[in-house]
Amino acid sequence: MSLIVQKYGGSSVADLDLIQGVARKAIAAKNQGHRVVVVLSAMKGETDRLIRLARSASPDPDPRELDSMLSTGEQISTAMFALCCQAMGEKVKSFTGFQAGIATSGPHSKARISGIEPARILTELAKGRLAVVCGFQGVDKAGDITTLGRGGSDTTAVAMAVALSADVCEIYTDVDGIYTTDPNICSDARRMDRISYEEMLELASLGAKVMEIRSVELAMNYLLPIHVRHAHGGGAGTLITQEDPDMEKTPVRGVTHSMNEARITLLRVKDEPGVAARILQVAAKAEIVVDVIVQNKSASLEGEMLTDLSFTVPAPEYPRTMELMKGLVGELQAGQVVGDDQIAKVSIVGAGMRNHAGVAAKMFHALASEGINITMITTSEIKISCIIEKKYAELAVRTLHDAFGLAGEPGGNRS
Amino acid sequence: MSLIVQKYGGSSVADLDLIQGVARKAIAAKNQGHRVVVVLSAMKGETDRLIRLARSASPDPDPRELDSMLSTGEQISTAMFALCCQAMGEKVKSFTGFQAGIATSGPHSKARISGIEPARILTELAKGRLAVVCGFQGVDKAGDITTLGRGGSDTTAVAMAVALSADVCEIYTDVDGIYTTDPNICSDARRMDRISYEEMLELASLGAKVMEIRSVELAMNYLLPIHVRHAHGGGAGTLITQEDPDMEKTPVRGVTHSMNEARITLLRVKDEPGVAARILQVAAKAEIVVDVIVQNKSASLEGEMLTDLSFTVPAPEYPRTMELMKGLVGELQAGQVVGDDQIAKVSIVGAGMRNHAGVAAKMFHALASEGINITMITTSEIKISCIIEKKYAELAVRTLHDAFGLAGEPGGNRS
Repeated sequence: MSLIVQKYGGSSVADLDLIQGVARKAIAAKNQGHRVVVVLSAMKGETDRLIRLARSASPDPDPRELDSMLSTGEQISTAMFALCCQAMGEKVKSFTGFQAGIATSGPHSKARISGIEPARILTELAKGRLAVVCGFQGVDKAGDITTLGRGGSDTTAVAMAVALSADVCEIYTDVDGIYTTDPNICSDARRMDRISYEEMLELASLGAKVMEIRSVELAMNYLLPIHVRHAHGGGAGTLITQEDPDMEKTPVRGVTHSMNEARITLLRVKDEPGVAARILQVAAKAEIVVDVIVQNKSASLEGEMLTDLSFTVPAPEYPRTMELMKGLVGELQAGQVVGDDQIAKVSIVGAGMRNHAGVAAKMFHALASEGINITMITTSEIKISCIIEKKYAELAVRTLHDAFGLAGEPGGNRS
Repeated sequence: MSLIVQKYGGSSVADLDLIQGVARKAIAAKNQGHRVVVVLSAMKGETDRLIRLARSASPDPDPRELDSMLSTGEQISTAMFALCCQAMGEKVKSFTGFQAGIATSGPHSKARISGIEPARILTELAKGRLAVVCGFQGVDKAGDITTLGRGGSDTTAVAMAVALSADVCEIYTDVDGIYTTDPNICSDARRMDRISYEEMLELASLGAKVMEIRSVELAMNYLLPIHVRHAHGGGAGTLITQEDPDMEKTPVRGVTHSMNEARITLLRVKDEPGVAARILQVAAKAEIVVDVIVQNKSASLEGEMLTDLSFTVPAPEYPRTMELMKGLVGELQAGQVVGDDQIAKVSIVGAGMRNHAGVAAKMFHALASEGINITMITTSEIKISCIIEKKYAELAVRTLHDAFGLAGEPGGNRS
């Protein structure tokens, strides 16, 4: 008998029919002999409705009051789940974040779970009953209701699974697992049976928005397996777990891309310590997240070493960042600020690439063979990202997916 | 400087405009130097919407889950109030029943307030801020959210006022005070400036549905003045308070009526102890509330004393009660069961009638002079009720209102 935490997102509980389906799934798992705790998001659309309502009252709503309003979304979806179970003859109690013992710290709308005291949940499990818990919310030391931010229900589910020493946390969503790349771009994208925490983190941060990134980090810290599955299909899904030797045989596991970036370059700044720091300081103060940073030696002017410094920011921050950097031209004696928002980032991810030489070379060669120019490169232990022209993004994804044999190669885990 | 608890009902916070109006009213009271705590109901229609939603999931929703859902209504209205205040430059925090320290006991959907620990409210008041509290809800010993039943926000407001030792509890509603009778029936019905707790209790239980009856009882126990006022008008309203000598000068203060009754008579039952008790026992077991009871000597049959026993029940219970009583005919050796659902109850209420002889005689005479036959009479210290034919109900109300000089008599408190 396992202890399973099941999490269903907003689109999986969007209406009564769907909630009934989810209730049947949870009851089925219980009837198989498992102890089951369900974590739910608000019914799809409800959070947006409440935000609109709050904004009608105040254009910049107080986060404490907004959190109190938003938390009602899960309070309703979990009660509806309990009522559906009841109508099926199953006794279930719903628990708000507070009732489930979910303590948080940090600011409203971006709170972090600081601890869980799941006494009431354990009582229900001991009685042989299901329990359903509001995702996305908790209560801080002052007794105020806090929310964890968008996607926070994943974090609730994983943290609850850790607190209960669950065997697995099942994340039910509207896709049937983690794919080697975006199936909308690459028709032969393949669902992976397994993926390591590290790979998932790189894929999540790169835009494969299946899982909330904090929840994967948390699961990794406690070695809690996460099982990503389709909420209303019956597929095998993808298990996010520790690396295993099999995974290393395939150096590259997935290809991701992001179109939502812009590049800014300061031309001919002094090549001396502190210049890059100053630029990043200005960006950080404006709360602009800088992603890829590359510094290239440039021309020498009257004996002085000069350099070009490029970095990428989220596309919506592009105009603001350009203004800020233009304000630095004088201070840094930079030659000029240029920018480009017609870029994309394509990345390959794989825990196995640590032990495989030549992965980067193979990537660059594959892109070059399609005439795709790389303007920036950044690497981590298990990831290589290239900035390219936006118009080549989809071609680059398909090219790399093919080059690394991700589509149903022999010995692969095609489902 | 007074401490004022203001309560606004659902129709007073039905939309954003109305909530803004209510926020302005509360802020104005604070700016006059008062400490102000606001208690709100859910926005009008929201509670019904949530009940429909719950019933869609389960035809007979679990009361615990229903309470959890319904409590979100006030959570949203109070947050909206706080946001409106914020947009007006005023700092306010909203508090759920739990956060406001409202402890309850008793069953879900009909819980009673067992105590209030208003530490957080006092903190806000000490900071010179408004506080807004969810009406209608609290939390029980288990930590579950409970509701007080329809109209429970009045009870929240009065209980909070008592806990805070407030000077007055202002109940804002969609009428501008308590009237001598129903203005829809009697065009010269007059708003009363003052009324005693006892009179208000009799008027409330008779159908003048301005105040929730439990809240008046509670206020009476603590001698807390209640001020009933129009939410969006500026009138003087009605102060519910202790009897004062002036009130006694007018023996009758108000006339009420109820059309929602039915009479059942058991003809020729034995006139012996235990018969009436048996009938009421059967009704009580079926949770039927019996109101007026009258027993009349009837014919003597073969030396045995027989009696007719009549009582009234709420009209919706009429068919069920008839069936139950027909089932008793054999056991009680009653002659027959007859009933009539075309009846009405008219009542006169006044604390002063204790000291005035002839009030009852004047009432019966006034009705007789209009050809209205009285079939049952029941009296209390400060109330006399008559059961009459339904078709005469409005005429009876106007006749009594006139007979006791309630319409703007000289020296009255017509506004």
